[in-house]
Amino acid sequence: MSVQSPVVDSSSTYIGFTELVALLQQVFVKHGTSPQVAAILANNCASAERDGAHSHGVFRIPGYVSTLGSAWVNGSAVPVVEDVASGFVRVDACNGFAQPALAAARPLLVEKARSAGIAVLAIRNSHHFAALWPDVEPFAEEGLLAISVVNSMTCVVPHGADRPVFGTNPIAFAAPRADGPPIVFDLATSAIAHGDVQLAARKGERVPPGTGVDSLGQPTQDPKAILEGGALLPFGGHKGSALSMMVELLAAALTGGNFSFEFDWSNHPGAKTPWTGQLLIVIDPSKAAGQNFAERSQELVRQMHAAGLKRLPGDRRHRARAKAEVEGIAIDAQELSRLRVLAQG
Amino acid sequence: MSVQSPVVDSSSTYIGFTELVALLQQVFVKHGTSPQVAAILANNCASAERDGAHSHGVFRIPGYVSTLGSAWVNGSAVPVVEDVASGFVRVDACNGFAQPALAAARPLLVEKARSAGIAVLAIRNSHHFAALWPDVEPFAEEGLLAISVVNSMTCVVPHGADRPVFGTNPIAFAAPRADGPPIVFDLATSAIAHGDVQLAARKGERVPPGTGVDSLGQPTQDPKAILEGGALLPFGGHKGSALSMMVELLAAALTGGNFSFEFDWSNHPGAKTPWTGQLLIVIDPSKAAGQNFAERSQELVRQMHAAGLKRLPGDRRHRARAKAEVEGIAIDAQELSRLRVLAQG
Repeated sequence: MSVQSPVVDSSSTYIGFTELVALLQQVFVKHGTSPQVAAILANNCASAERDGAHSHGVFRIPGYVSTLGSAWVNGSAVPVVEDVASGFVRVDACNGFAQPALAAARPLLVEKARSAGIAVLAIRNSHHFAALWPDVEPFAEEGLLAISVVNSMTCVVPHGADRPVFGTNPIAFAAPRADGPPIVFDLATSAIAHGDVQLAARKGERVPPGTGVDSLGQPTQDPKAILEGGALLPFGGHKGSALSMMVELLAAALTGGNFSFEFDWSNHPGAKTPWTGQLLIVIDPSKAAGQNFAERSQELVRQMHAAGLKRLPGDRRHRARAKAEVEGIAIDAQELSRLRVLAQG
Repeated sequence: MSVQSPVVDSSSTYIGFTELVALLQQVFVKHGTSPQVAAILANNCASAERDGAHSHGVFRIPGYVSTLGSAWVNGSAVPVVEDVASGFVRVDACNGFAQPALAAARPLLVEKARSAGIAVLAIRNSHHFAALWPDVEPFAEEGLLAISVVNSMTCVVPHGADRPVFGTNPIAFAAPRADGPPIVFDLATSAIAHGDVQLAARKGERVPPGTGVDSLGQPTQDPKAILEGGALLPFGGHKGSALSMMVELLAAALTGGNFSFEFDWSNHPGAKTPWTGQLLIVIDPSKAAGQNFAERSQELVRQMHAAGLKRLPGDRRHRARAKAEVEGIAIDAQELSRLRVLAQG
């Protein structure tokens, strides 16, 4: 593994995407996943790092490693795909990660969506510890629309309640457009993503007001107070709270997975990955009436720019990706050293 | 039409639900709808009034009447249902209202959802001037999950833009639960519903901070400044804005309907109803793995209450409904007189 570019400052270096994937793959295999699972998770994690989504990039590796070490998740699980109806696919992830379950069901899901016009994939018994946009973006690259929701672990207080119930429960959406990369967003229904609270704590930064409460339920901007017995708030008051509730119902109740408050990892010290469920809905816009969908979505983007919008959701990621393709992925040199140590076992 | 209960104050009186429906039906027919369309809209509007959703109750009648008078909408349109695929139904509302289009397609949509596990209904060329929850709640009463989105008319500034593009673009969701009425929410992706701004203007009240901007793009709490050349903001900053964009894509681009910025009613003075599209997704939870969905959703509600939540989304409506079933629907006496005048033609 060689450093591709000169060091940019005392602590930063560059690594190519393929090299980073290979390194992460070694890390996963050394810590107990099958090669198949390692390939999927390494690609996912390196993609987030490449796109500048740092809270879901290599920052997550220690959490993956400690979780695998705790025997909380099965890193070699082989997902079981069930063909339930002409628009309904289920997968039992068998206590493995959600991404291999999606990969296993994906061909059947796409086939059903193209045939029925819409199809749903219900993943249960799964661990999702990554960003959600990598799960939906590829569908839009094939001309399909995709929506996904995943619940996580109790850390968000429902609007009007005193104590946490929901997870950060993100919603991701991807749609094709004619003259550019897909329109993609991935938003936590909490006021801030859990990974960003962890990053702020690590950097000693404060989080924005309205983000969370401490262990006494009092508003705080201290990320450590939120992480140590405190909780997050939903974004947008009662509306974000309602959406977070919807995510619990779709990702857990509808899949047969755990709610964010249901799993108990107390016998697995080091476990970090929520053991819940995930739902994907995929729609084939070629079944729609009227003009080609991608032309229409492009028209919406044109109007948003005409109204003064500088940046679409996802634009920052695409710019980071383009830069990384030329320069390599900027990574902290110490972080890279740690990854290399982890890759040795 | 008789007043059922004694007058409660100088301006309030009570009317039974059935009587209100009959009165509104007369109003619609007198102003140019077919009896079929009148029956559907009257039921919808009376239900909102009964449930205390005043911004979408009889308050809307003058808007319906002026719109019908302007020949902007076809009050006698007969929707054309198209069976596209095993999970995809389209309806051309033929420049009529969205609710009759939904009613026409509903049996096919439910049949497909039960057979395929999921089905989508794409309504285009339609006018939606009502609350969205009445469209989804009945599915949950039959044991199904339903999500609906509808775009409206340009009045919301995308986060990061200078000028409005989106409509108030609500998202509604309904799911069954074991020990109570369905879990239902209906939320505008704008910081406030347009109807509530109109109500505030009428009452001379201010709207909350962060709700809207005036015609110069400056923040304002004056509802009249918002209505006269100003605009609304999305709820929850960039997240609500992303969801509003998704609603445009699903309700317009995917249905073949107009975006919120595309229709021009300048030749129809008095027209108030947005001419756009609507999407519904219906899922049959009996296809899911694990325990009965309604038992699971009840468990989530139980946990939310245990965490201190006093009121679920929809609880206020259900309480208002129960009260109205006993006492009748409280209505302003002058408003009732105006309706009776409108019912005469």
